[in-house]
Amino acid sequence: MKYLEDIALGETYALGRYTFGADDIKAFAGRFDPQLFHLDETAAEASHFGALCASGWHTAAVWMRLIVEYRRRVVEQAHARGEPVASMGPALGFRELRWLKPVYAGDTVNYASEVVEARASNSRPGFGLLTIRSTGVNQNGEAVISFLSTTFVERRPQQ
Amino acid sequence: MKYLEDIALGETYALGRYTFGADDIKAFAGRFDPQLFHLDETAAEASHFGALCASGWHTAAVWMRLIVEYRRRVVEQAHARGEPVASMGPALGFRELRWLKPVYAGDTVNYASEVVEARASNSRPGFGLLTIRSTGVNQNGEAVISFLSTTFVERRPQQ
Repeated sequence: MKYLEDIALGETYALGRYTFGADDIKAFAGRFDPQLFHLDETAAEASHFGALCASGWHTAAVWMRLIVEYRRRVVEQAHARGEPVASMGPALGFRELRWLKPVYAGDTVNYASEVVEARASNSRPGFGLLTIRSTGVNQNGEAVISFLSTTFVERRPQQ
Repeated sequence: MKYLEDIALGETYALGRYTFGADDIKAFAGRFDPQLFHLDETAAEASHFGALCASGWHTAAVWMRLIVEYRRRVVEQAHARGEPVASMGPALGFRELRWLKPVYAGDTVNYASEVVEARASNSRPGFGLLTIRSTGVNQNGEAVISFLSTTFVERRPQQ
């Protein structure tokens, strides 16, 4: 990743797309969210969702997968160019996590993140705190998930 | 579930415990959070975590599983007593999700939820909004995860 000083407010990162297949939705729900509208098409049709849809935690977990892979590509590209790579700490937490629309079986969600805040850290010298807003948008252009997350990012070493 | 009017502020729900085994941690991370400190003991020892630990999304997803099972038991018990069961809507979202300590392989997390707000819904007649704070505490008494969630809960039918 870039050093905190090199990250501009409003920068956006295209993380990639993911299509939620019915079997995938059911497998996740069977382990972590065994509600009928995530497990069974017929029961889902009778529910307020009207059709089989993914657990909200599944939609969030796929974002995690995509951002880990995105960061890995960024690090590999920086290494290939011989550029330094800033360290990132673990995520401190998430805020304002909203599931705005159901993610139905067959839906493709396009995930992106936008930098909304960058500031110095009081607690951890050499690091700052980067806050991004991440969103997932389905194939109809509807936002289905949105949240803020904050992570430690290394500051540019003083010369 | 109980009707909104029958739920008291400060009520707590013991959701149950879950032990995060190393294989379980790696299986989740392999699918959704493929960072080395969630996948490989040796790499984890060299990381800032110091040992293999669970993805934060894994810790959250296990909460979902436990609360779904908890609600199912409550509904079954109410049916067995011949009591009416209030409907719940889907979760609207989560706030202030924080991973406070790592969950290491072998840790047992005890999950509980406490009612922190109950109010009428403006948008959905017959329903109110219930907000709970959920926490997970490890075997050493340390909180590892905390968040707020808000759900539609049916109001008591007018006589």
